[in-house]
Amino acid sequence: MATIKDVARLAGVAPSSVTRVLRGHRYVSDDLARRVAAAVEELGYRPDLVAAGLRGGRSHTVGVIVSDIINPVIAQLVDALETALHAQGYGTLLANSHGDPARDVENVERLGQRRVDGLVVMSVDERSPELVAALSAWSGPIVLADRQIPGLVRANAVLSDHRRGARALVSHLVDQGHRRIGYLGGPTGSTYVWRERTSGFIEALEDHGLPRDPALVKSARATPDAGRRSTLELLDLPEPPSAVVAGPNPLLSGTLQALHERGIEVGRDVALGCLDDVAVAVLHEPPITAVNRDITKVAQVAAELLLAQLTSAERHPRTVVLPVELRSRASTSRAFGNAEAARPPARASAERR
Amino acid sequence: MATIKDVARLAGVAPSSVTRVLRGHRYVSDDLARRVAAAVEELGYRPDLVAAGLRGGRSHTVGVIVSDIINPVIAQLVDALETALHAQGYGTLLANSHGDPARDVENVERLGQRRVDGLVVMSVDERSPELVAALSAWSGPIVLADRQIPGLVRANAVLSDHRRGARALVSHLVDQGHRRIGYLGGPTGSTYVWRERTSGFIEALEDHGLPRDPALVKSARATPDAGRRSTLELLDLPEPPSAVVAGPNPLLSGTLQALHERGIEVGRDVALGCLDDVAVAVLHEPPITAVNRDITKVAQVAAELLLAQLTSAERHPRTVVLPVELRSRASTSRAFGNAEAARPPARASAERR
Repeated sequence: MATIKDVARLAGVAPSSVTRVLRGHRYVSDDLARRVAAAVEELGYRPDLVAAGLRGGRSHTVGVIVSDIINPVIAQLVDALETALHAQGYGTLLANSHGDPARDVENVERLGQRRVDGLVVMSVDERSPELVAALSAWSGPIVLADRQIPGLVRANAVLSDHRRGARALVSHLVDQGHRRIGYLGGPTGSTYVWRERTSGFIEALEDHGLPRDPALVKSARATPDAGRRSTLELLDLPEPPSAVVAGPNPLLSGTLQALHERGIEVGRDVALGCLDDVAVAVLHEPPITAVNRDITKVAQVAAELLLAQLTSAERHPRTVVLPVELRSRASTSRAFGNAEAARPPARASAERR
Repeated sequence: MATIKDVARLAGVAPSSVTRVLRGHRYVSDDLARRVAAAVEELGYRPDLVAAGLRGGRSHTVGVIVSDIINPVIAQLVDALETALHAQGYGTLLANSHGDPARDVENVERLGQRRVDGLVVMSVDERSPELVAALSAWSGPIVLADRQIPGLVRANAVLSDHRRGARALVSHLVDQGHRRIGYLGGPTGSTYVWRERTSGFIEALEDHGLPRDPALVKSARATPDAGRRSTLELLDLPEPPSAVVAGPNPLLSGTLQALHERGIEVGRDVALGCLDDVAVAVLHEPPITAVNRDITKVAQVAAELLLAQLTSAERHPRTVVLPVELRSRASTSRAFGNAEAARPPARASAERR
């Protein structure tokens, strides 16, 4: 059995450097990583994680708290996070808050009492004093994923630039000639995600000198039913929007259903964009323009931030903001005139009521 | 503060009957449940679960092991299970095996070491001796969800009638005139789900005196990529199928992509059915015929089986098989002649290569 010293000798580096590479330390040069990887490969070295865990009193288990596992982007993120942590010898235990802020608190306590080395937190709400208290009472390292909790100074955070994403999508719609743009957002103010997206939406309107019509902005629970109802409300306005930005993923199916019921065709009668790139958007005919983020990258950074505190001398929490990109597709490709709005074609109007 | 005795007095029943109702015991008459519920409501009684947990040495936490959280049906099931257990005062901790049987075993050990009162198991594989050993070593009650482990005699099971579901879908396709039906299944033999579905597929062919062509049966990993490749292989057969049954949910997007690439339109050029009723199937244009199961019911039965052993005198494990239903939609509504097969229309044939 090869040891860490054998790997170090073959790679021509110090054993501590091998450990840093194997533990996924952030400040490792590409050259060092390559040499260690080649030596590990050549010697067939496998780190003895159980022994390492016993020595360090660690459980090699990370607790993950998510707002709602039904959201496909959350499920993807959990999957990517598990992959990133598993590659470093860590398992994960997941607690789902089911859209209920009270369960965020229960889940912090539940996991905190069960030997986890660190927590990754995607809570339903980030403002609850009970949540801040529960997280503050927990002694291990914390990474907030798309959450900002100012009262929790020692937490790391990995954020996506949701403001820029929403802004890019709305600007794209304005460029296509849209002046009345409906916005279906998540619970306003509950988390970084919706605070930033809603700000981005408003800023884009301001950038283009467009008025803010409160009737065009809906804040809805992330369910298909709520999405359907909010979309019908937008369509029933005296001046319905010619473009719609659909927010929370589970809501998108409701939006599509409402449009279908009214005989309004995406891409022809109304432009539609969404703020996460989910399967429903990609597979829809026509495909739906979406803001995409690199979920794997988000997960990798979250794992890195956590492991930096778990396995190295890293004392200071860090915040990393990752970019997003707009993927323009056929649902927003048709240019609209000012006066046009989301209406079914004349022949279908009898079906509207 | 009202006590359980106050509730019993007002309801005119024994305190032990109140406990049975509150703990979701299975053998409770509707009348008893109603009287207790009315008394609980009137007195504003709230059971002290923490105290009850301390008395009983219970953690009021159930461990849930799932094969792959990316599968939307698994995510829905987890969500419904959490709802059912939470209503009974139980929280859940989730461990995802990420399609890797080795992680099933890790997850049983991880949860088993962490004070959970019971386990609900939807493992990647049900045959691994290591999994059976790990589950046998765990002393609490177990509910297998859509898994059968003959070596684990003390486990409860909630099963869906997947065989009948697959059979109904294939019979429906045969009734529409299809004679060559492609089948994209999950890993054969790994679990009850795929064993039953594949048997149902084969039985339906036999029922109708149709030959089994091995070239039409694919076993694929549940990823979009694998779905795309397997579908292309079916389309490239000298005699491609006129209907396709797409199995694992994450695979369906790959099937749709492959058909799109070849300019083959669902419902017109090829009939398509799937074995789980997911959002992609419902929202597809045309909507896709699917086998539906009542996920909420599955979750409720799983919770009931577990709680019966946790909170009452139930000693014997039980197996409950739940029905499924075929939801016929436009993707399979066109009748096909014998000679027809999945081919793009003539004008699109230049796009095929």
